Amino acid sequence: MNNQQSVAEAFIKYQTEKIRQYKADPSVPSFQLNNAEMELAQALQRKAKIQPTGGTRTSSNVILKVPKGTRDFHPAQMRLRSEVLNKITNIFKLHGAHQIDTPVFELKEILTGKYGDDSKLIYDLKDQGGEILSLRYDLTVPFARYVAMNKISSIKRYQIAKVYRRDNPAIARGRYREFYQCDFDVAGQYESMIPDAEIVKLLDEILSCLDIGKYVIKINHRKILDGIFQVAGVDPELFRGVSSSIDKLDKSPWEEVAAELETLRGLNKKQIGTIAMFVQISGSLSKVLNILMTNYEIMACSLAKEGIDDMMLLINYVKALGIPDSRVLFDLSLARGLDYYTGVIYEAIVESTTESEAIAVGSIAGGGRYDNLVGMFDANNRKVPCVGISIGVERIFSLLEQRKDSSLKPYDVEVYVASAQKDMVGHRLRLASLLWDAKLKAELSYKPNPKLLQQLQYCEETNIPWVIVIGQDEVARKVVKLRNVQSRAEVEVSESDIVSELKQRLAGAVLPSAVNN
Amino acid sequence: MNNQQSVAEAFIKYQTEKIRQYKADPSVPSFQLNNAEMELAQALQRKAKIQPTGGTRTSSNVILKVPKGTRDFHPAQMRLRSEVLNKITNIFKLHGAHQIDTPVFELKEILTGKYGDDSKLIYDLKDQGGEILSLRYDLTVPFARYVAMNKISSIKRYQIAKVYRRDNPAIARGRYREFYQCDFDVAGQYESMIPDAEIVKLLDEILSCLDIGKYVIKINHRKILDGIFQVAGVDPELFRGVSSSIDKLDKSPWEEVAAELETLRGLNKKQIGTIAMFVQISGSLSKVLNILMTNYEIMACSLAKEGIDDMMLLINYVKALGIPDSRVLFDLSLARGLDYYTGVIYEAIVESTTESEAIAVGSIAGGGRYDNLVGMFDANNRKVPCVGISIGVERIFSLLEQRKDSSLKPYDVEVYVASAQKDMVGHRLRLASLLWDAKLKAELSYKPNPKLLQQLQYCEETNIPWVIVIGQDEVARKVVKLRNVQSRAEVEVSESDIVSELKQRLAGAVLPSAVNN
Repeated sequence: MNNQQSVAEAFIKYQTEKIRQYKADPSVPSFQLNNAEMELAQALQRKAKIQPTGGTRTSSNVILKVPKGTRDFHPAQMRLRSEVLNKITNIFKLHGAHQIDTPVFELKEILTGKYGDDSKLIYDLKDQGGEILSLRYDLTVPFARYVAMNKISSIKRYQIAKVYRRDNPAIARGRYREFYQCDFDVAGQYESMIPDAEIVKLLDEILSCLDIGKYVIKINHRKILDGIFQVAGVDPELFRGVSSSIDKLDKSPWEEVAAELETLRGLNKKQIGTIAMFVQISGSLSKVLNILMTNYEIMACSLAKEGIDDMMLLINYVKALGIPDSRVLFDLSLARGLDYYTGVIYEAIVESTTESEAIAVGSIAGGGRYDNLVGMFDANNRKVPCVGISIGVERIFSLLEQRKDSSLKPYDVEVYVASAQKDMVGHRLRLASLLWDAKLKAELSYKPNPKLLQQLQYCEETNIPWVIVIGQDEVARKVVKLRNVQSRAEVEVSESDIVSELKQRLAGAVLPSAVNN
Repeated sequence: MNNQQSVAEAFIKYQTEKIRQYKADPSVPSFQLNNAEMELAQALQRKAKIQPTGGTRTSSNVILKVPKGTRDFHPAQMRLRSEVLNKITNIFKLHGAHQIDTPVFELKEILTGKYGDDSKLIYDLKDQGGEILSLRYDLTVPFARYVAMNKISSIKRYQIAKVYRRDNPAIARGRYREFYQCDFDVAGQYESMIPDAEIVKLLDEILSCLDIGKYVIKINHRKILDGIFQVAGVDPELFRGVSSSIDKLDKSPWEEVAAELETLRGLNKKQIGTIAMFVQISGSLSKVLNILMTNYEIMACSLAKEGIDDMMLLINYVKALGIPDSRVLFDLSLARGLDYYTGVIYEAIVESTTESEAIAVGSIAGGGRYDNLVGMFDANNRKVPCVGISIGVERIFSLLEQRKDSSLKPYDVEVYVASAQKDMVGHRLRLASLLWDAKLKAELSYKPNPKLLQQLQYCEETNIPWVIVIGQDEVARKVVKLRNVQSRAEVEVSESDIVSELKQRLAGAVLPSAVNN
């Protein structure tokens, strides 16, 4: 017997004895006995639920599980998920973004050659005759396909949808094979860094409203990174590979990355030394810009210079937008894995507050500018420059689930229709119908002759604040008893007034759930 | 040149001449000239958009299309879709349902043997090592798997998600290979017909609130249908096959179905004759029940009698719920294709109001009782009876898109930050940031030095009701010009008051979009 079980046993023993005493004592009022019995019944039910669960097979010997790296979302989780997605959606809309949706799969060739090494993680569909399809790997490539196919020259869009990667799942860190991405992108020919700055603002708004603790938005620029490689004397053909190695710095120490640069990428010690010097630099936008601008070799490199010019604009815009210095970090080691970025790149990091969270957190958003992707889909190579950000909400869910009270009740039914006697189904249905038509959230027992005690118990357990109780007498007089579940106080209300009465009480009352939490 | 183009040409010619005259006449005020120029610019832009579109290939010779039977959702469509799904969700919640979500794919063996002939329409994933997976075909089988796997004994849940069928697409009828289903199901051991009746009520609420015109909810009972087959002397092993043929009666005439019963199912003329007599019967619940109850053979058949007892309860409950007789049809020809139904079955039909709609409409919801499906997934064959309904919203979208004004504008930005002079980016960003932080939906031009005319034009085109206009003078005096886009009236407001001023005007004002529609 585990601890939970023994506590439950002890309470049941205590409560049983109390009821025996109440019954023996004629001075105890009947409502007190009723309440004690209700509490006992609840305890018995709770005890019944304390049972270990495990894997199982069905009667036809099928293993009963969800596919590797995926999960079901239970009602309480769905509530948290909707809450988070709604907050994000509202901020996307503040910035005037339009929502679009694309199919969960694309022609395989649309995805081919867009993800570099990660292409091996794409889920393919079986060839069942007809087109060869793959599940989407992100929302960026389908968006670029959408812009090219619909000949759109400018759009600010958001899309919230699941993407699929045959990666090694790490559930505790919130890494799944099926997961939501929330993407915001600005497509269009703009000679400025204004949309690039707006995205920093948008990200700051989202992260601050999600209440996930301290965070920092890392920024870098692909042209500055490539400029550094050029200054270090690296062959331009190796730039993306070197970038890919540098990208591992958030998980691996410099020594490992340096070893990979030497053995896998073929760089010499001097080249690695130069890169090492630069990628250690991080700090406020102005601090890092100052360091770069006093470096003669960097300023002589036209590629790096273009990136620096962009960052000069960005620093002014980020200031005008009122984003505090402490939440933005110019980090020359930020590289981002994907090939298609061409300008500014972003990554948001949540700082852990406890040791167990240190595992769960890390990067929760990433993005950047990709000016050539749409052109790859256009017959005339017509370019539509884009910049965007993708919020990886799965890690945010994991974080909030760890931090939040796990007893979060998913119910918000407002009123329950109960009967105190038998053969009242028709009247219960009639009253429930009245409530539904008035847009009140209502439930009733599905049993033909439920016991009143069980009905009231259900309301207490599920935090339903009000119960309408009827019997033959009430039906004959066209009234109902309106009972407050928490206080157990009852008033009689006429059937014709019950909707307005309930609406008033629901609007004004402090609900039991609000009091308990 | 098509008609649209020639109209555009004519207007541009007229407007150009008008501007020429205005310019020549010194008595014409400058705002009049400005407005005329704005209208010309808009006309030129509209003309540029009138172009035929067609299929295309990308620069790398990839065909640019979405997979067969799927579609992208554009912003205006997404707005309609959210509207419909929100209405449905709100009604699910009225009835106290919990939302869950399941992965888009399941282990293939979970889906095996659940859909009869339709199994051939399941999308399989490629075997890339590891588990063998298939895309979900509906939400019912994953729900049964969920209930069994989590050892749930009772739940009222809803799920809104896309399902996948390699069917022959019929886009005009709203039949896609990727489409949304909105499912509501009640799982649990209830000896009554109360949840079965609640589903009729729920369906009635949803269909009436969606504003899709006249509809009817067809009801039948699998046990009555099987009773009819028994009375006709059909071998019980043929029941599901015969049912499957009867199911085609909504699309095919009786003669075709009769031929299929004879040739494919092997029934004789007498058996077919008996079935023919019954499946022609439809009408109100009471009318059809009366016909059945006066039939000696049916009443002598215990299977049919069980179904009739259920329907007797249902008729009382539907009456108590106040659902009008005219919207419920007891139709003995209703069979439903899927094997797993065991009791009452439902189907909702929208009646067409025009000839073109006659193609688009038809069945928009279907469901029924399935008491054995969860048991198939349980190691001990523990049964959890279920009853549910699935709303096929794709057809509802098609119907509403056909009926609605296609010019539905997807924008709801509340205020635009414009500048009247050059070099104002920082100030535009500062003001936009002020608005976003106050949760006002705001946009600004991404060009460093946009022309005022173009900024105002954009607001007119996209129905943004308010513009803040700033210049060096306004910035120096810490004020802004607040312009009503529709009336073109301007007032000066101090920067510190602009948020409260806008919130008041937005709360009270009739927006241009509301006036135009």
